[in-house]
Amino acid sequence: MSGAILVLSGPSGAGKSTIIEHSSNQIGEYYFSISTTTREPRVGEEDGVDYYFVSKEEFEDGIRAGEFLEYAIVHGNYYGTSLKPVNEALSMGKLVVFDIDVQGHRLVRTKMGRLVTSAFITPPTLDELKKRLYARSTDAVEIIEKRIQNAKEEIKAIDEFDFVIINDTIEKASAQFTTIANAARLKLSEKELKKLIDDWENPPI
Amino acid sequence: MSGAILVLSGPSGAGKSTIIEHSSNQIGEYYFSISTTTREPRVGEEDGVDYYFVSKEEFEDGIRAGEFLEYAIVHGNYYGTSLKPVNEALSMGKLVVFDIDVQGHRLVRTKMGRLVTSAFITPPTLDELKKRLYARSTDAVEIIEKRIQNAKEEIKAIDEFDFVIINDTIEKASAQFTTIANAARLKLSEKELKKLIDDWENPPI
Repeated sequence: MSGAILVLSGPSGAGKSTIIEHSSNQIGEYYFSISTTTREPRVGEEDGVDYYFVSKEEFEDGIRAGEFLEYAIVHGNYYGTSLKPVNEALSMGKLVVFDIDVQGHRLVRTKMGRLVTSAFITPPTLDELKKRLYARSTDAVEIIEKRIQNAKEEIKAIDEFDFVIINDTIEKASAQFTTIANAARLKLSEKELKKLIDDWENPPI
Repeated sequence: MSGAILVLSGPSGAGKSTIIEHSSNQIGEYYFSISTTTREPRVGEEDGVDYYFVSKEEFEDGIRAGEFLEYAIVHGNYYGTSLKPVNEALSMGKLVVFDIDVQGHRLVRTKMGRLVTSAFITPPTLDELKKRLYARSTDAVEIIEKRIQNAKEEIKAIDEFDFVIINDTIEKASAQFTTIANAARLKLSEKELKKLIDDWENPPI
């Protein structure tokens, strides 16, 4: 069986990474997609772990060569997902997990079709999101406020997602995530479906 | 949380009821939708268990009153799904399971939108289906052959379904069904999504 794709979106502060970590023993082998960006690494960020850091020229060469599954410009920097590692993970039968925004979700869904399952993860309320962002963050107030504005925009796209996970308790949210991830893994590609129908009437000997 | 809908389709002989029975302890409370028909009850069939048996006039009154979620005429008899018990089960938060054909799936999906998850269940090969139908059936050969012809038609609609379950072993097929049913239960209706977004920005006090 080939792999499948699980797209997670939702505001920064929704707890996406915590949920994935908490569920990682229950969801089988997966590949967490690492984005490529032209922005400068921040202190503590590692190339190939947090992002693939590349130059603007490299990124634009990649765009021209059709190497990106999706990309966007945010605050003057490119962010994108390279197709190659995704296809490699899929061919190994892995579940590929994306943490991308609602715009990225639209592009991945268009390009990868049936293989995609998606979930929007959010804290129960806007107030709770604000609390979490202010409590955890060492970022400047204007960056936090920008994230809150983004969250208010992104939640409007919630009906484009297959599932919604309200992260009020980590146990409940992780259990839902596990259920969704295990179902996502059962998705078949167009190619697999075609082969299935062919083999169904005329099984290979 | 309101309920959700799980549509199962697939050839007669695919093992749908066996899979549901085998999984019933793992999928929480569910309501198995009972169809309404104008055909005569067969020996051993009970009204309200196997079908709701009604007259042609009653059925046609129901159609005019908009009481059917979906219906079709097969070999001169009406078969359909009444909306009322489905809506009652949904309002109690139950998972409503349908065993209907690919045509019924299309209609339910159109009318119930986001609440629907669907799976096509099939034996691994056409030969295996033939074996199972001939082994178990007390039906006449022409009825069995008719079912096989139907199966060959129905499998062409496989790409309209969210999931495909190949029933080669009951353990594997039931485990997949359980995963799918538990994910199906997490689906939210349009109304729930709208309320969620409203409450997110302005929580009720």
